[in-house]
Amino acid sequence: MRIALDAMGGDHGPAPNVAGALRAIAAVPDLSVVLVGNQPQIEAGLEQAPPELRQRLSIVHASEVIGMDEKPTDALRKKPDSSIARCWHLVADKQVDGLVSAGNTGAVVATGLVIKRFLKGVRRPGIAAVMPTATGQTVILDVGANVWPKPLHLLHYGVMGSVFAEQILGVAQPKIGLMNVGEEEGKGHELIQKTYELFRNGPLREQFAGNVEGRDIHKGMVDVIVTDGFVGNVVLKHAEGVFDFIMNLVMNDVIGTLARERDLALAACQNLIAKFHYSSFGGAPLLGIDGICMICHGASDERAIANALAAAAQDARVQLNEKITQAIAALPTFQDLD
Amino acid sequence: MRIALDAMGGDHGPAPNVAGALRAIAAVPDLSVVLVGNQPQIEAGLEQAPPELRQRLSIVHASEVIGMDEKPTDALRKKPDSSIARCWHLVADKQVDGLVSAGNTGAVVATGLVIKRFLKGVRRPGIAAVMPTATGQTVILDVGANVWPKPLHLLHYGVMGSVFAEQILGVAQPKIGLMNVGEEEGKGHELIQKTYELFRNGPLREQFAGNVEGRDIHKGMVDVIVTDGFVGNVVLKHAEGVFDFIMNLVMNDVIGTLARERDLALAACQNLIAKFHYSSFGGAPLLGIDGICMICHGASDERAIANALAAAAQDARVQLNEKITQAIAALPTFQDLD
Repeated sequence: MRIALDAMGGDHGPAPNVAGALRAIAAVPDLSVVLVGNQPQIEAGLEQAPPELRQRLSIVHASEVIGMDEKPTDALRKKPDSSIARCWHLVADKQVDGLVSAGNTGAVVATGLVIKRFLKGVRRPGIAAVMPTATGQTVILDVGANVWPKPLHLLHYGVMGSVFAEQILGVAQPKIGLMNVGEEEGKGHELIQKTYELFRNGPLREQFAGNVEGRDIHKGMVDVIVTDGFVGNVVLKHAEGVFDFIMNLVMNDVIGTLARERDLALAACQNLIAKFHYSSFGGAPLLGIDGICMICHGASDERAIANALAAAAQDARVQLNEKITQAIAALPTFQDLD
Repeated sequence: MRIALDAMGGDHGPAPNVAGALRAIAAVPDLSVVLVGNQPQIEAGLEQAPPELRQRLSIVHASEVIGMDEKPTDALRKKPDSSIARCWHLVADKQVDGLVSAGNTGAVVATGLVIKRFLKGVRRPGIAAVMPTATGQTVILDVGANVWPKPLHLLHYGVMGSVFAEQILGVAQPKIGLMNVGEEEGKGHELIQKTYELFRNGPLREQFAGNVEGRDIHKGMVDVIVTDGFVGNVVLKHAEGVFDFIMNLVMNDVIGTLARERDLALAACQNLIAKFHYSSFGGAPLLGIDGICMICHGASDERAIANALAAAAQDARVQLNEKITQAIAALPTFQDLD
């Protein structure tokens, strides 16, 4: 598997990207990585790299970098030779099996939508994020590509999330829940009520488990949670914020009270943080576009980038997009509902 | 202060309500409580009550109970003598200074909207919830009364949340943030973009701190977070879910590894849980309606009910609604934007 990595993406420049690429290559035998960005900077980061890893890395120069806060549409127009655009061109030219970027999410999505087509039949791509639960993992989508969807977009998210849960999380017949403000049918606003109807009586009815409330997300009641990109984005970032907030409290108020077993408790806490930190989950795939694209947190460290590269390779290996296309093709024809 | 308590509300029937009323009266010297519901059941619960507390409790019989899952509009029509309706009538007749209910939230809100008017000038009531942050507390609204608001409703939530933060949380010139999917202006969908504009260039511009992302909620960057009732509801319940999920992990993976200092760590953990559990926050006020109304979690225990009664009494004591009315009256006139 050959994955393009936006070496300039993220809050910390090339360093964690280059280190992450080396780490991923060391861990995944069939992986090669194309580092895309400022060639001299990337080469400087590779000086100490072991030769047996270095030979599975190549560099494609890109003369421009899109800033984390740049407006995506402006960036696209003004910076045709950005590292993000180069990554997408490598995907489009079939030089790589997928791309990974911790850069400006809006720009990654917008550039993809300009350079590549949607997967056949998909009405709107969505970003899927894997979240930990009491029983394993659940995939929630969309988390930010489509903040004002239609019911049919959300039905497609159900299909795509379901294929992802089967192929990547290894769940047979994934259960799908609809994010809502209460359990009962009829809850929520019109978009959600119409979407509920489409799931309840449509082609996914066997897999549909009804509404899911905020407090249920981490209970593991469903394998796929469908929501609009506004709610999904707030929830995903909120999970990160609550986790940091609580673990800080635990560090101060619990670990801080201990004496003799403080180191033991601290190590257990650090394990827990490492296990549930977003960097374990290796980025969020943009599903519904013709090309594997893994979007990473701007603050991604070496470990997060390495996990995202491994995840992108796995998505390509299982032919995730081909399977999504088949599942969408198997749906009856719907009109977009407003 | 005299507060009506829906003694039938919540998942556990009268027991935690009656116990909560006794606990609140013991703690708050000027508080008296009217227990509203099935008189024999309430009296049975009061048999062991100390006489000095019992004398500050009275009972108003209501022959009907609205179930937690009943559809609010049906319940209103079919059960005119519900404990919820009786509570609101006591407010309307000025027999009490406010009400507390852990019953069906939709029914509490819908009944209030039928029996009482909105506060003068308020376009739509909203439910405010207090959430803990790294620096203190923040109030987020709406968390479920208005899932499809207009920009002006959200501006009013800014005003009401700000008065609440001043009067109840003791913050001078509260800072207001708008829940969004990114920090930069222009993020989010049309409703949020228009609302941003209304805050940025409107009468609250001095207090407006811009967009707030999900990961910022618990950082304490702002005192008031404005959002629609769908997002607010998901976030509030998600906070509860993440907290339970993480504290379970800490109990198993951290406390479980200890031997000699296990009891010490366990006690510290239990303190932390008690401090940040929703029951510490005593319910969420429905703001914008002519009457103090505190809405509690369906799972409320004695402590949650007691805290909610004390909070309702405090809202009445500081004349929260009079102050909201003044603040709304001070706004220039706006047209509702779609």
